[in-house]
Amino acid sequence: MTAIPGYRLNDPTLPPSPVSPQDFEELKASLLFGPADVAALRRAHEVLAPQVEAILDVWYGFVGSNPHLLRYFSTETGEPVGPYLDAVRKRFGQWILDTCRADYDAAWLAWQDEIGRRHHRIGKNKTDGVRAAPHIPMSQLLALAIPISVTVRPFLVKSGNSPDDVDAMHAAWTKSVWLHAILWARPYAIAGDF
Amino acid sequence: MTAIPGYRLNDPTLPPSPVSPQDFEELKASLLFGPADVAALRRAHEVLAPQVEAILDVWYGFVGSNPHLLRYFSTETGEPVGPYLDAVRKRFGQWILDTCRADYDAAWLAWQDEIGRRHHRIGKNKTDGVRAAPHIPMSQLLALAIPISVTVRPFLVKSGNSPDDVDAMHAAWTKSVWLHAILWARPYAIAGDF
Repeated sequence: MTAIPGYRLNDPTLPPSPVSPQDFEELKASLLFGPADVAALRRAHEVLAPQVEAILDVWYGFVGSNPHLLRYFSTETGEPVGPYLDAVRKRFGQWILDTCRADYDAAWLAWQDEIGRRHHRIGKNKTDGVRAAPHIPMSQLLALAIPISVTVRPFLVKSGNSPDDVDAMHAAWTKSVWLHAILWARPYAIAGDF
Repeated sequence: MTAIPGYRLNDPTLPPSPVSPQDFEELKASLLFGPADVAALRRAHEVLAPQVEAILDVWYGFVGSNPHLLRYFSTETGEPVGPYLDAVRKRFGQWILDTCRADYDAAWLAWQDEIGRRHHRIGKNKTDGVRAAPHIPMSQLLALAIPISVTVRPFLVKSGNSPDDVDAMHAAWTKSVWLHAILWARPYAIAGDF
């Protein structure tokens, strides 16, 4: 366990994910997500770990330059909440590393459900005790998978690995980001519809 | 208008999409979807139009080889519903062309919402009057954006266009597919959460 406030991967007190093991297997199958992707993500870990802060700079630059995104980190009157941005940044950096090394077990699934709740009105702001916007719409939560995917490619290219390996790492990263975004959307779905 | 049964793009009797113009603009911004993507998709139209049936063969091969997907086209007792598969195939082929030429206007948004309802229990099977599985889970609906994205790349490569242009067309295709999938998920979200 790390000392990042609010970070709860492998916290046994989290409620279990309502996603059943069979549903999760079928979800990975539809995403074409298999052992080769897990292996490619392990290789991506070596490449991305030393670049985490630079990646976060890109992502925070994107959020900061888009008022419709910055408002999710801001008060009702439009003031960005610095401590909230900082707290999320620490967890987001850890998420990059975790995404490359994920075990996809019950603890990992429970943590994804918790991350989903933290974007939804049922859980947003509670972890950090802040008064920012009360909800991130599901459409925005899902859409951000694209920048989170696209912006990582240049950092993978910097590895100097072969173009084929960069493609494999990036394909695996993209599928994994999609997988996360879909699981994070679970609390937004009508009961029984997810 | 074409003669494809159940095809309703530009049907003025469709209910309007509940997605507001501002929400739609913000959604495209988060997806990094802009005029260069629209232009790249127009170029992709030339490349993909003569290959629509071959693309559908790949997609139907994928569905047919995955029991957890084929069951959405099957009866309760597991019999695939041939007329349903055929009717969807015609609309899916048209969707490839429409995706390359989309106007992203109110009629287009209304049609995306209708397509979403046809995957959800509120509308599934009604268009074709069939007795297949009553609902496609939101997680599966979203996950299928990955194969729909990945499998199109080889067909773009066949264009003989430059690698940079293939990349641009494929990036635009992927963003557009994700945009569609998100809009199709609208009927699954708790009221006010989308």
